[in-house]
Amino acid sequence: MKLLAVSWGDFERWKETKYRFDEEVSVGPSTLPILQKVIKPDWTVIVLSDTLGRDFSSLDALREDVKGRVMDFLERIGAGREVDVIIAPGIGQFAHGTFRGSAMDAYHHILHSLAQILPPGEPLDVHFDSTHGLNYITLLTYRALKELLGIAALGNNVAFTAYNSDPFVPKIPHELTINVIEERRAAPAPLAEPLPEKNGKYLGNRSLPGREYGEVMKGLKRMETVRKSRGRLNAWISSVINGLPLVFASAFPETDELEGAIEELEAAYTEAIALSPGRVERRLSLGKGFGVLVKLQFQARVLETAGLPKDELSLGELLDISERIFRGSVKESTKKELNNLSKALKLNSSKWIRLAELFEMAGKTPNRQVDERNFLAHAGLEANLIELKREGELYVRYTREKVKYGGAMKEPWKVIENILSKTLGG
Amino acid sequence: MKLLAVSWGDFERWKETKYRFDEEVSVGPSTLPILQKVIKPDWTVIVLSDTLGRDFSSLDALREDVKGRVMDFLERIGAGREVDVIIAPGIGQFAHGTFRGSAMDAYHHILHSLAQILPPGEPLDVHFDSTHGLNYITLLTYRALKELLGIAALGNNVAFTAYNSDPFVPKIPHELTINVIEERRAAPAPLAEPLPEKNGKYLGNRSLPGREYGEVMKGLKRMETVRKSRGRLNAWISSVINGLPLVFASAFPETDELEGAIEELEAAYTEAIALSPGRVERRLSLGKGFGVLVKLQFQARVLETAGLPKDELSLGELLDISERIFRGSVKESTKKELNNLSKALKLNSSKWIRLAELFEMAGKTPNRQVDERNFLAHAGLEANLIELKREGELYVRYTREKVKYGGAMKEPWKVIENILSKTLGG
Repeated sequence: MKLLAVSWGDFERWKETKYRFDEEVSVGPSTLPILQKVIKPDWTVIVLSDTLGRDFSSLDALREDVKGRVMDFLERIGAGREVDVIIAPGIGQFAHGTFRGSAMDAYHHILHSLAQILPPGEPLDVHFDSTHGLNYITLLTYRALKELLGIAALGNNVAFTAYNSDPFVPKIPHELTINVIEERRAAPAPLAEPLPEKNGKYLGNRSLPGREYGEVMKGLKRMETVRKSRGRLNAWISSVINGLPLVFASAFPETDELEGAIEELEAAYTEAIALSPGRVERRLSLGKGFGVLVKLQFQARVLETAGLPKDELSLGELLDISERIFRGSVKESTKKELNNLSKALKLNSSKWIRLAELFEMAGKTPNRQVDERNFLAHAGLEANLIELKREGELYVRYTREKVKYGGAMKEPWKVIENILSKTLGG
Repeated sequence: MKLLAVSWGDFERWKETKYRFDEEVSVGPSTLPILQKVIKPDWTVIVLSDTLGRDFSSLDALREDVKGRVMDFLERIGAGREVDVIIAPGIGQFAHGTFRGSAMDAYHHILHSLAQILPPGEPLDVHFDSTHGLNYITLLTYRALKELLGIAALGNNVAFTAYNSDPFVPKIPHELTINVIEERRAAPAPLAEPLPEKNGKYLGNRSLPGREYGEVMKGLKRMETVRKSRGRLNAWISSVINGLPLVFASAFPETDELEGAIEELEAAYTEAIALSPGRVERRLSLGKGFGVLVKLQFQARVLETAGLPKDELSLGELLDISERIFRGSVKESTKKELNNLSKALKLNSSKWIRLAELFEMAGKTPNRQVDERNFLAHAGLEANLIELKREGELYVRYTREKVKYGGAMKEPWKVIENILSKTLGG
């Protein structure tokens, strides 16, 4: 898919300008028609701030006001209508009204909107024009776009090109060239942040009374479900970075659950926006945890694999996952570790046997306590934690029995989650 | 080090404004004084475009004009004088003059300047204000800064915070709040691009006659030396990503050589800038290869290790390198591979012996051809490529003999470079 994304400011005030892009020339108030003509995108996304809105009767009315004027403008300038308009929560005090809230809401809103627009399962060719945007909206759009494209590149080729025209100088009529300011293939960059622990990191309080905020947070049921499984989800985030195929398959996220939590948070955030004539007050703020949820959900869609989550897999399935998801030395050492498992159980056995026991049967003396470094050094296939069976093919799973870790017997997934929580930054 | 970086446009036209930042309030044309007061940076960097310059008698004069006016402005607004001023090559047509060149020169210039300012060997706390900048200069500064901070984070903790004030609205006098628009710990992000092959990717031609361009390129002696060793340098870039400690140590770059090539390229680029009254024409452009060289040199300084490059190392030295440079599963599996070497040669031998031969002596039947996947799966310690000796401690090196690869006998480093060139994007 070829996508054109543009960051816009107050479009109704733009002056007629002559733009040049490659061999094309066009005259009008915006770069959009010439960009669409030369790039020929399948779809266009326009990002702008809701501070352009003048109808304060409701949030929908405010957004519809901006959107309607954008559509009129597109008609007037003869631009293609295959567009999404992202109306981000902006801040500031203007002649027509005052908008208060967290400056980072715009980032989270744009991130979420783009994650819904970008198709996760196909090559992407993304073009971004920063000519007309407000500084902070442009920077936040650029950041959101780059983060999502790094994730998309885990599954497909992704190209990125950014443009900006020559600076517009009032009273000097001349042709403005549209320049390429960045051009590259996006490098795969998996999500590396964990889901935070605290509720307030998902939805922050700016100006709700404490009790009311407490009520809102208590109502976030789907969010609470996700937050309770954050250990498992963070383990999955780590599995993509560290090449752990059995963790990847067993802990694969339910994207619907994530989407439910994201929608719930956004609804609560939106609900707490107070409008009065000439004033928008966003009393809650979208937090870092909201951003991680959005990126996690997008990554799960990019890496979607039929049949996952699943906690008992054949060696062939695990090798396929490793071949597809991992790269470089991580891929090769993970595949080597998987292939080594074959040697540990050569005869058929329909009973699951712990790998450490197989080692003992072979006369080895494995450490019977789970060692963190060992877990990472062996692609998560640690001998006390995994069990094998063979029915022709070899099958692998994590044990359901408690394992020794830090001197005590612990639930196996508690051990895995504990080890992997230390591999992510914050 | 606490650094404040700000992106500026045409500072002499800014209006008096009341800014609020946390509990502080200040009145003046710029956010700088209040940022310096609250953040208390050790150093400030101001990035702006040379298109503000009005003295076209020479490039130095043009830059000095801008710099002098910045220093006067700092004095006028009562800002701290512990500053670097980065005067980036901008483009556009203004009342006072026309500036022609590649829009990406600004990125390369800012990247190079920031790489000289950021100390590579200490924790960084970087604050970036985008309030006053031109869109494209701000985006390019942000990108250059983020890339360098990702590299710096390989060696030290790096915090990053970005700010933007409420939008300035003419004729509406009110207080503008300085908002945090991004706040995070920078994740380690090693350089993942290779040095390109073609000369023209380092220094592109825009408007020099072909013969003259040819002469310039022929004169780039230090660049040519570096370009000839690009296979080795790309192997080093890959070693940081893929956890290959012996490649890391043996191919460690000579930072002076890189610096020499960077300076030579910049000198040739600068030399080809033609100034005439009211006009600046940059006839060459800094290319992607220049950017990779700058990031490579910065990364080598961040990961600087006493005694490197060195091609015969003790096991202890290789373990130390791995502990310091790599992370997560890459670190643990690399250390496991290193520790396995100990078992292959337990008795003292002052003669270097190929690991594959040691395997054969132990009754194993190693593949006597270098296999690419094997090389990556074993942290670059492939049995045909490495030699061991033991004098109390175990020592490791790459062989100097030809090895079998792709059915023919090849120089060992040609083999390593060939394998690793496939691990980098483009």
